Amino acid sequence: MRVCGIDCGTETTGYGVVEWDDRARNPHLVSLCSGGICPPKKAHLPERLAVIYAELATLFERFHPDIVAVEEVFYSVNARSAIRLGHVRGVALLAAATAGLPVAEYAPLTIKSTVTGYGLAAKQQVQFMVARLLSLPAAPEPADAADALAIAICHIHHAQTLSLQEASAL
Amino acid sequence: MRVCGIDCGTETTGYGVVEWDDRARNPHLVSLCSGGICPPKKAHLPERLAVIYAELATLFERFHPDIVAVEEVFYSVNARSAIRLGHVRGVALLAAATAGLPVAEYAPLTIKSTVTGYGLAAKQQVQFMVARLLSLPAAPEPADAADALAIAICHIHHAQTLSLQEASAL
Repeated sequence: MRVCGIDCGTETTGYGVVEWDDRARNPHLVSLCSGGICPPKKAHLPERLAVIYAELATLFERFHPDIVAVEEVFYSVNARSAIRLGHVRGVALLAAATAGLPVAEYAPLTIKSTVTGYGLAAKQQVQFMVARLLSLPAAPEPADAADALAIAICHIHHAQTLSLQEASAL
Repeated sequence: MRVCGIDCGTETTGYGVVEWDDRARNPHLVSLCSGGICPPKKAHLPERLAVIYAELATLFERFHPDIVAVEEVFYSVNARSAIRLGHVRGVALLAAATAGLPVAEYAPLTIKSTVTGYGLAAKQQVQFMVARLLSLPAAPEPADAADALAIAICHIHHAQTLSLQEASAL
């Protein structure tokens, strides 16, 4: 299973593609790529959104993920931040739909507790654990990329639990 | 000048293409088309956004507007509504950017006062005045289409004022 996690942000949108390699002798998680999309700050919003859309479309075409995973919308932010984040999130969801990819959503608490065991973990803890789980020599940069990888890992974990539950129900 | 007004909404996204015909003996506004995009309510959000994007792309391709006009973001809505509206707005701005069209933004107060002479006009007043200004036999339906036409008219009005000011400054 190959999952593309996306951490939508108004300045940087993180992405990370993670594969669960269960054909290996020791099934493990592999990071195929990760990074941050940073559209030029001085560009107008429509152009910034076009950069994000184009980069995500290229990413999906190159890595062929089975599914896209994003953070659920959280409502504690103010309306101004929410609408700005909404622009990016809308474009990311559109890119997934255009590529014919399903989208899974996870609450920030679920993502953090899946990766670190603690729902209110700090950004550094998430980065540290993502590097550990993916056997990376260092924490992925930017932090948004680590967050995106965490979202992808969260989906793989939950999909596995789900398929185990389904198997035990047979 | 041909302007496509878009009134972004989570249930219905209104659109309206208006032309300022200044080659006629009596220069006047003409409505070329208007309507509402209503993606299937039961579809998932990414698919709903894909419907909006595809319909806007087709509209731009068919009517070749010179510019797209949208409402400025207003911040009085709550964060939940703001992020939902942001999704649609992001996709509309992306559609404009992809078609190579510039985007102009107007505050709701400016749009209403341009069309009705009163910034806090009711929806019905906007619909009534849009029909009058465009010499339509009846108010455009849905109301979102009338709002979109009002945004387009607002841009034409301001572009004219601007060009008059520029001419007088010469």
